[in-house]
Amino acid sequence: MRRGSIDDYVIEAIVGFQEGPGLVLLKGRGPYISKAVDVYNELVHRLGDGLELVKVEIGSERVKGRVFSYITISLKKKF
Amino acid sequence: MRRGSIDDYVIEAIVGFQEGPGLVLLKGRGPYISKAVDVYNELVHRLGDGLELVKVEIGSERVKGRVFSYITISLKKKF
Ligand SMILES: [Zn+2]
Repeated sequence: MRRGSIDDYVIEAIVGFQEGPGLVLLKGRGPYISKAVDVYNELVHRLGDGLELVKVEIGSERVKGRVFSYITISLKKKF
Repeated sequence: MRRGSIDDYVIEAIVGFQEGPGLVLLKGRGPYISKAVDVYNELVHRLGDGLELVKVEIGSERVKGRVFSYITISLKKKF
């Protein structure tokens, strides 16, 4: 996640689901953690039961010498 | 989570662990989702292996007529 709108990321995820059966990951660092969850909720709203929340991972990582909190939301399309 | 510092919430969580064997929940809505993850990471830093991440729940909820994304991080102290 960066500066794109919520809908930009929603579209990106839906395109990702169309490209194959694999997982789609929503990842956000720092203030973009909240945005990743916003995108997840908008996908729930659009896809309903078709969306499967596979895993939510939280942690911290070093990027260019600074430590950031992050979230990774792993999603699958069910049908 | 609201306006308190990360350390305020870290102290609150550690006091919560001392009060009994139950879960300690970190909850954040909207922009405070990121802060909840920051508090989790600081607890990992302080408690290391003593901290067990039991569950991470994400979703949306209505508060006073507005819809907010939220995260709830459920934690346990291991020893
Ligand atoms: Zn620390």
